[in-house]
Amino acid sequence: MTRTVYINGQYMAETDAKVSIFDRGFLFADAVYEVTAVLEGKLIDNAGHIARLTRSCQELGIPMPISAEELTEIQRSLIEKNQLHEGGVYLQLTRGSEGDRDFSYSEDIKPTLVLFTQARELIHSPVAKKGIKVLSMDDIRWRRRDIKTTSLLPACMAKHIAHQAGCDDVWLIEQGYVTEGGSSNAYIVTDEGKIITRPLSNDILSGITRASLMLLAKDCGLVIEERAFTIEEAYQATEAFVSSATTFIWPVTHIDDHEIGDGKPGPIAAKLREIYIKTSLEMAE
Amino acid sequence: MTRTVYINGQYMAETDAKVSIFDRGFLFADAVYEVTAVLEGKLIDNAGHIARLTRSCQELGIPMPISAEELTEIQRSLIEKNQLHEGGVYLQLTRGSEGDRDFSYSEDIKPTLVLFTQARELIHSPVAKKGIKVLSMDDIRWRRRDIKTTSLLPACMAKHIAHQAGCDDVWLIEQGYVTEGGSSNAYIVTDEGKIITRPLSNDILSGITRASLMLLAKDCGLVIEERAFTIEEAYQATEAFVSSATTFIWPVTHIDDHEIGDGKPGPIAAKLREIYIKTSLEMAE
Repeated sequence: MTRTVYINGQYMAETDAKVSIFDRGFLFADAVYEVTAVLEGKLIDNAGHIARLTRSCQELGIPMPISAEELTEIQRSLIEKNQLHEGGVYLQLTRGSEGDRDFSYSEDIKPTLVLFTQARELIHSPVAKKGIKVLSMDDIRWRRRDIKTTSLLPACMAKHIAHQAGCDDVWLIEQGYVTEGGSSNAYIVTDEGKIITRPLSNDILSGITRASLMLLAKDCGLVIEERAFTIEEAYQATEAFVSSATTFIWPVTHIDDHEIGDGKPGPIAAKLREIYIKTSLEMAE
Repeated sequence: MTRTVYINGQYMAETDAKVSIFDRGFLFADAVYEVTAVLEGKLIDNAGHIARLTRSCQELGIPMPISAEELTEIQRSLIEKNQLHEGGVYLQLTRGSEGDRDFSYSEDIKPTLVLFTQARELIHSPVAKKGIKVLSMDDIRWRRRDIKTTSLLPACMAKHIAHQAGCDDVWLIEQGYVTEGGSSNAYIVTDEGKIITRPLSNDILSGITRASLMLLAKDCGLVIEERAFTIEEAYQATEAFVSSATTFIWPVTHIDDHEIGDGKPGPIAAKLREIYIKTSLEMAE
């Protein structure tokens, strides 16, 4: 089936979905994005994604071309047109095009808005059961990782190296401390069952799933400590896991040459995943 | 006049020049580029640009889709079709599109090649006479600045802040030392007339104009010392200037609140600019 995608007010076949080569998203990675998970045809944690999009735009001075409500209408419309049951809706907003290439831009340039759906098995993902192996790597990305931009080449490079090494993803390291995964937030569990994750700053993305998880964990009586942890501490952890919008929670069974715990997905990650999916479905829009 | 541009083997009107929204250049900034200056309808230092493009591609594992000779034929063809006398030819190569969004990519994906011309006054640029004011700023970019990718948002942001502060460009600072300009290599001249510029590493782009300049300066009996310099040293410099493919050499008259020398374009920058343009025209292809 050919997907229907959205560009600047128009719905069209994915094969016709094109942007100008002068679009600043193409020439300068001058663009922000969000991915919202879809379960049973409904948007998961979408208010958080739209709020983060709005913040990313503010940080870069890209005007939001339409309201949050209108954005959500387009997301829902694409879900319907593509009969999407499970997967995600991708949304990218670029600063737009002025018909030529110039680092400078005028303030009144009209942004380019692109949305499309992706069908994927999220709940019964085999990876969620099996867990992932991660490779640690130097974090060479820019220093505003709190802004969700399309400058994703370093993540692509890191993931590619991990795949070549037989791993599923990376954990990035800065000055000895784990920042985040290739496209996820990173967590470890200590001997005492405490969950450790890096506090928010410009060093990491403020995960929407992370925010939801922190609330749910507290509701379950789990203790979350927000502090940076080293890769050595991660090697010795009882459990490790990652969270992101479309993976929810995936257990980490191996980091570099180290088995985490007994090398099998841990119970805290499994419990949080189950609760997150259950609660998300109840609150899905 | 509507420009003719080139995309993947086809020449077309700039208004028709579009790429798929699934192109990795648009979604991930998974792309490299080069800009070659054009004087009197001829390509300046082009062999250096093609060689650097080849290296950028090697670093990212993007295959060169056509030979250096074929690339140059397209550049020349665009100059002719657009009757370009003075300006530049922009070339961007992305990893291509596999019809959907995924950090992972297969090795045999077909790259997307885009070229277009830009008419600009280079030799008689008023800025070359007047000089530029630069604002120093923290260098927050990723740590592989030697690869010429389209991840240019940090440069756009920095330049925008500089323009808002009444400056023309930025000098970026890492751990107290100047790395480079927003889209140029940076130089200062000491009391003794020695030219100082940062040595090549992953921290800066290996400028094609920089390489030519170093040879020409030696021919003129000027001493160039390759070492990092602090912003404080720059404030006290006798002269300062920048080099890039389409500006050649521009004098820097002010850095932050400091006049450089007497606040007027200096003689060494003027001399190097004159020699660079003269030699480039003689060697232009």
